[in-house]
Amino acid sequence: MKSKIFSFVGDSNSGKTTLISKIIVELTKRNYTVGAVKHCSKGFEIDKKGKDSYILRERGADPVLLISKNDVALLKKNSSEEPMELIERYFSNRDFVIVEGGRNWKGIKKIEVIGNERDRLQLDDRPIAIISGEEVYTDVPLFRKDEIEKIVNFMENTK
Amino acid sequence: MKSKIFSFVGDSNSGKTTLISKIIVELTKRNYTVGAVKHCSKGFEIDKKGKDSYILRERGADPVLLISKNDVALLKKNSSEEPMELIERYFSNRDFVIVEGGRNWKGIKKIEVIGNERDRLQLDDRPIAIISGEEVYTDVPLFRKDEIEKIVNFMENTK
Repeated sequence: MKSKIFSFVGDSNSGKTTLISKIIVELTKRNYTVGAVKHCSKGFEIDKKGKDSYILRERGADPVLLISKNDVALLKKNSSEEPMELIERYFSNRDFVIVEGGRNWKGIKKIEVIGNERDRLQLDDRPIAIISGEEVYTDVPLFRKDEIEKIVNFMENTK
Repeated sequence: MKSKIFSFVGDSNSGKTTLISKIIVELTKRNYTVGAVKHCSKGFEIDKKGKDSYILRERGADPVLLISKNDVALLKKNSSEEPMELIERYFSNRDFVIVEGGRNWKGIKKIEVIGNERDRLQLDDRPIAIISGEEVYTDVPLFRKDEIEKIVNFMENTK
């Protein structure tokens, strides 16, 4: 089965992570497998200076794979691949893939998360739904931030 | 081309990381592409409590993929896959894959790194070479820790 991919976009203080967390819990409750992607526009600090993984990468190893009994972490350079290529490679077997951010990523359905009308983004792609703290004028489905079940129903039914 | 995979095994104070770092630098100098794997028998701390990636995983997302302009990190549960399966999946296009640790991993050529005879490990697989601080009696090739070029020549020539 091909994964259903949705990107939740909105300003950094729009409450995206909290909302997405609840959506993941609800999807899991409905027995779906879920992967998540976070677009870290300011970068992320995953291996710190002085750590072995950092040293190995600095010396020229790429990728670096860490394997423990419970977890696996793959750290690699972003060789300017399209996000969709990365997502398709790593999430081929998940029912849903929830993306946090990635407002400019092509080929992914966007759901806009806002506090109110003034937060609306200029998106290349029209969002397929809006989740808002206040009512806004829109011709796409509009949800409140606490309507998790309704939002997940909508995601289930989106082709 | 299939990757050449070597696992460097030895006690935690045997200087494996320093040695491997130098080997990676030498391989890179010879224009090989190199991936690295670290077996973290005590686990690793890659995403910390309270971080978004931690929260998303805790809520049930697996894997979690972080994408920034320069880096990509894939964090996932280790669903008791064989290390070789993971390595083959993620390193199919590297000339060399250097493994740190993994003394019990099957199907990987082992190079033993020791300070002296007393450090010798009980390995299921016989090592294909030994790198030692002192001379030891052995019928496999023996290298000093500073003989990086010779070690890399040996790795190049190993089928």
